[in-house]
Amino acid sequence: LEKDAPAALRKAIAAGKDKQVLDPSYPYPEEMKGKDYDEQMAGLQLQLVRLMHDVIREGKRMIVLFEGRDAAGKGGTIERVRENLNPRSAYIVALPKPNEREADEWYFQRYVDWLPARGEIALFDRSWYNRGVVEKVFGFSSNAQRETFFRQLPLFENMLVDDGVILVKLWLEVGRAEQLRRFLARERDPLKQWKLSSIDVDGLAKWDDYSAAIRDTLLRSHSGIAPWTVIRADDKRRARIAAIQTILRSVEFRGRDDRLIGQPDPQITGGPEILPE
Amino acid sequence: LEKDAPAALRKAIAAGKDKQVLDPSYPYPEEMKGKDYDEQMAGLQLQLVRLMHDVIREGKRMIVLFEGRDAAGKGGTIERVRENLNPRSAYIVALPKPNEREADEWYFQRYVDWLPARGEIALFDRSWYNRGVVEKVFGFSSNAQRETFFRQLPLFENMLVDDGVILVKLWLEVGRAEQLRRFLARERDPLKQWKLSSIDVDGLAKWDDYSAAIRDTLLRSHSGIAPWTVIRADDKRRARIAAIQTILRSVEFRGRDDRLIGQPDPQITGGPEILPE
Amino acid sequence: LEKDAPAALRKAIAAGKDKQVLDPSYPYPEEMKGKDYDEQMAGLQLQLVRLMHDVIREGKRMIVLFEGRDAAGKGGTIERVRENLNPRSAYIVALPKPNEREADEWYFQRYVDWLPARGEIALFDRSWYNRGVVEKVFGFSSNAQRETFFRQLPLFENMLVDDGVILVKLWLEVGRAEQLRRFLARERDPLKQWKLSSIDVDGLAKWDDYSAAIRDTLLRSHSGIAPWTVIRADDKRRARIAAIQTILRSVEFRGRDDRLIGQPDPQITGGPEILPE
Amino acid sequence: LEKDAPAALRKAIAAGKDKQVLDPSYPYPEEMKGKDYDEQMAGLQLQLVRLMHDVIREGKRMIVLFEGRDAAGKGGTIERVRENLNPRSAYIVALPKPNEREADEWYFQRYVDWLPARGEIALFDRSWYNRGVVEKVFGFSSNAQRETFFRQLPLFENMLVDDGVILVKLWLEVGRAEQLRRFLARERDPLKQWKLSSIDVDGLAKWDDYSAAIRDTLLRSHSGIAPWTVIRADDKRRARIAAIQTILRSVEFRGRDDRLIGQPDPQITGGPEILPE
Ligand SMILES: Nc1ncnc2c1ncn2[C@@H]1O[C@H](COP(=O)(O)OP(=O)(O)O)[C@@H](O)[C@H]1O
Ligand SMILES: Nc1ncnc2c1ncn2[C@@H]1O[C@H](COP(=O)(O)OP(=O)(O)O)[C@@H](O)[C@H]1O
Ligand SMILES: Nc1ncnc2c1ncn2[C@@H]1O[C@H](COP(=O)(O)OP(=O)(O)O)[C@@H](O)[C@H]1O
Ligand SMILES: Nc1ncnc2c1ncn2[C@@H]1O[C@H](COP(=O)(O)O)[C@@H](O)[C@H]1O
Repeated sequence: LEKDAPAALRKAIAAGKDKQVLDPSYPYPEEMKGKDYDEQMAGLQLQLVRLMHDVIREGKRMIVLFEGRDAAGKGGTIERVRENLNPRSAYIVALPKPNEREADEWYFQRYVDWLPARGEIALFDRSWYNRGVVEKVFGFSSNAQRETFFRQLPLFENMLVDDGVILVKLWLEVGRAEQLRRFLARERDPLKQWKLSSIDVDGLAKWDDYSAAIRDTLLRSHSGIAPWTVIRADDKRRARIAAIQTILRSVEFRGRDDRLIGQPDPQITGGPEILPE
Repeated sequence: LEKDAPAALRKAIAAGKDKQVLDPSYPYPEEMKGKDYDEQMAGLQLQLVRLMHDVIREGKRMIVLFEGRDAAGKGGTIERVRENLNPRSAYIVALPKPNEREADEWYFQRYVDWLPARGEIALFDRSWYNRGVVEKVFGFSSNAQRETFFRQLPLFENMLVDDGVILVKLWLEVGRAEQLRRFLARERDPLKQWKLSSIDVDGLAKWDDYSAAIRDTLLRSHSGIAPWTVIRADDKRRARIAAIQTILRSVEFRGRDDRLIGQPDPQITGGPEILPE
Repeated sequence: LEKDAPAALRKAIAAGKDKQVLDPSYPYPEEMKGKDYDEQMAGLQLQLVRLMHDVIREGKRMIVLFEGRDAAGKGGTIERVRENLNPRSAYIVALPKPNEREADEWYFQRYVDWLPARGEIALFDRSWYNRGVVEKVFGFSSNAQRETFFRQLPLFENMLVDDGVILVKLWLEVGRAEQLRRFLARERDPLKQWKLSSIDVDGLAKWDDYSAAIRDTLLRSHSGIAPWTVIRADDKRRARIAAIQTILRSVEFRGRDDRLIGQPDPQITGGPEILPE
Repeated sequence: LEKDAPAALRKAIAAGKDKQVLDPSYPYPEEMKGKDYDEQMAGLQLQLVRLMHDVIREGKRMIVLFEGRDAAGKGGTIERVRENLNPRSAYIVALPKPNEREADEWYFQRYVDWLPARGEIALFDRSWYNRGVVEKVFGFSSNAQRETFFRQLPLFENMLVDDGVILVKLWLEVGRAEQLRRFLARERDPLKQWKLSSIDVDGLAKWDDYSAAIRDTLLRSHSGIAPWTVIRADDKRRARIAAIQTILRSVEFRGRDDRLIGQPDPQITGGPEILPE
């Protein structure tokens, strides 16, 4: 993997120290301190449990979409969200690529199957946005299918929101050098090698295609009703905290403590406009 | 059953002869002749088979909703539509009342599960329109749920049509005396007694509530994209023919023969405006 | 189609008159009279409705497997069984060939999905026996898979029966000339051409392979707990009557009238031993 | 909660120090050291990843049932098993109590829906054994249903194993004082309060009923083909290690390193016979 990477990236990674954030445009030079992170996370976990109780008691329904570039930290963030939640209330939806029959159906159909009932929180590890990004970059669907997707998207999401579903859409963004550093770490770590899929590897050479598809997708699907929260995830800790803060702030619940939750750091959190060039 | 019915109805039924249409506002005094019916139906059946072949070959998707008053003839019409079709391509969807979990989900979710894939024709024996009519009349859902339904309906149906699904919505309407005559016939016929549900019986006294709910529902859900075809079904034969003609004319297919199909009889077929007072 | 057929068959068909049964080993030279058939069928239909009421009231569960050679009349028999039944209680299961994921699962899994709940009757148009017959003849599965199937079959069926499910297994058998005659009729009849699949056509040349696979399958899966009823279906009318009689006699129900039902004709009905050479 | 507990238990808990194991019959007086645990766990995690790769590559199917007394540590053990696995290959099945329709079906039906396809590992957080234990203790099903369950169980499990599915059944057992200690900790810990269900609380008074139901269930369902592994889980760390060792040793896979895996500690691991009195 390493030798295929552009020299500039390799140099950046080689020079980067352990806790140092590689992307020079990132607002912080270093990762958040472990102690601060643990402390803040502890409070957020308590609030997540409160949120869950409220969802169950009030019969709310909630969807959180975890999207983002490969290696941006979707999986780890989802783990932090669900680790103290009841698996019968908060479940992960991680669908494989569509099978033959699914490919012949309405695109959203297989996702509808997993929508939450009252009292449930569905955590989507990737989602219907595959059509906007990875399928575009790799040509897994046609342009016509993509346009259909973008036409239907607002209808579909509005319908859910109109129905009272709380819909949170998170995009985790990561810089190119950091992404490569994580890929390299995965390559070295036998526990994580499986995370490095052929799509990831082939995607490395398609950074710009990805950037274009992401920008296009987020801009076209960002609305008052179903807004995106983009989180710069070069520092995993700050990103996880901002993600959970965003989730907690997206819904009223008994026992919500806004002071404890705090505001997602505006330096790394925002709408699609904060996507780096 | 008989003795609860208003005297006027009972008189009409008693006076009515076998092939006579009871409703004086119906454009024909008598049922269509069996021979004419058989002849016309034979041609239509051939066209339905052609349609099916085309659906399979071209990977089309088709939904036909069969709605209507109780005893209007939904079941029999569906039978005529599917009798020569491949059960692996054309299937009936007749869902029971929602179970606990389904009641906690997005209203359309359980229907989405049965949407056709490419090459399939889904024949819905009742449909999501339950929320507009029977649930209103019997109070099975709240007014708020009903309003939500009507808000989402156009989004949902437009999305399907936008996706290329051919959506045909049929409403079979029957007069009050004719409905009662059929109920009485069911009551007498041991083969058909099961068709007479408690909802049917209790519904008898709610004719006007039904009329209001039907009118309201059809007007609010009739659009250029997803129009209703209302068919006056006091004469079952004419109704079946008009239904199949409507289906056949709703889609282009190889081998379609418009001369053979003919026009649905405008005297008994139209939009919601033809619902009798 | 015709020209590929063996001369002897062609001759038999050419010589055969309309109502004449082609197979010389069939116990009746001619089809049953229409009037007798209608009369007997009328009584059986009433009993089927009684059976359904009982199934609903008592919360019974019932499975009828319709198996048999191509063109033996499975579809028509199923239609006769269900035509007066409530589609929400008695449903047809006609599964397509397994998709990718299904092929990777436990063979019985996709069938389990369609097992009846209390109050339901599942009518299987083909079934798990595909593995024993058509998959053998066409090599769609390996010998090892076939042996696994036969090992698991009794466990699976016994479990259902043990659970209180009423399981009826019908095999409709038809002679070679009669099968070809029906194929030819399908070929000519535009309403039925779709019934003539490539599997049917290719199967014509495999009559003996089929005979061997059928004999093997039925013998290995015929047991006291889950017996086969083989019905010689060269005469469709007699076959339908025998099928419905068998179904009705397989279960006690309120209002069952054994005199009216009668015995399935022993000349055309029996165990696997009555399969012609 | 505390005040309802028998005095002897309360005393044991009050006297118990943090890392001390409460049950005097437990072979170790103290919890395993953190360092030893981490070290051994690191190696086991690597082997789990290898196992997953092998499952994917070879198209194996694997089921692990996690059963045990409330608060025995099922959830935490499952987390340790899956934390480094691909969520698209290894998924948790945590079904809610059966809904109306499911209650009307074959008991195993809703579980069959979640059986693994080739390349998948299904981790069951509770399982069909509910019928043997919790449903018995709380009377959620009848004795007749329970007997049916035990009759069908060996057929069902043998069928899976015969089909090539790797089936691992783990029972985590915990002493009475330790269970109460954990309940009390849950009661105090706002992150974990939700884990304390009314069934848990009511179950406290039913310790002996549970013991009897467990013994009965395990003895009746322990067989050479589908054996139980009972793990004494008073020390969570030792229990997790023994559980993962058991899983790893239940299947051959490329890269399996038996020296690294080691033997599950025979002092806390065995068949149903090691259940304490
Ligand atoms: N042929 C395909 N068609 C559509 N989507 C695909 C196809 N191949 C892969 N994908 C999707 O691309 C995404 C990224 O794939 P991959 O990197 O392998 O998985 P992940 O990042 O989830 O571990 C997944 O959501 C997958 O479903
Ligand atoms: N409690 C309920 N909640 C919602 N819908 C119901 C309820 N009870 C009955 N229905 C619906 O009312 C419709 C009419 O019921 P019924 O006359 O019994 O059936 P059918 O006309 O289909 O034989 C059905 O679609 C059924 O699902
Ligand atoms: N590749 C295949 N693998 C397994 N089964 C198959 C395959 N192709 C066809 N079949 C099965 O063979 C049976 C006969 O097929 P066919 O004659 O086309 O359908 P039918 O008789 O149901 O109209 C069907 O049940 C079908 O599912
Ligand atoms: N009424 C019920 N019928 C059957 N199982 C139940 C019922 N209530 C709870 N359970 C099961 O009991 C187990 C323990 O419940 P809980 O501790 O509440 O999660 C779960 O597996 C539930 O599914």
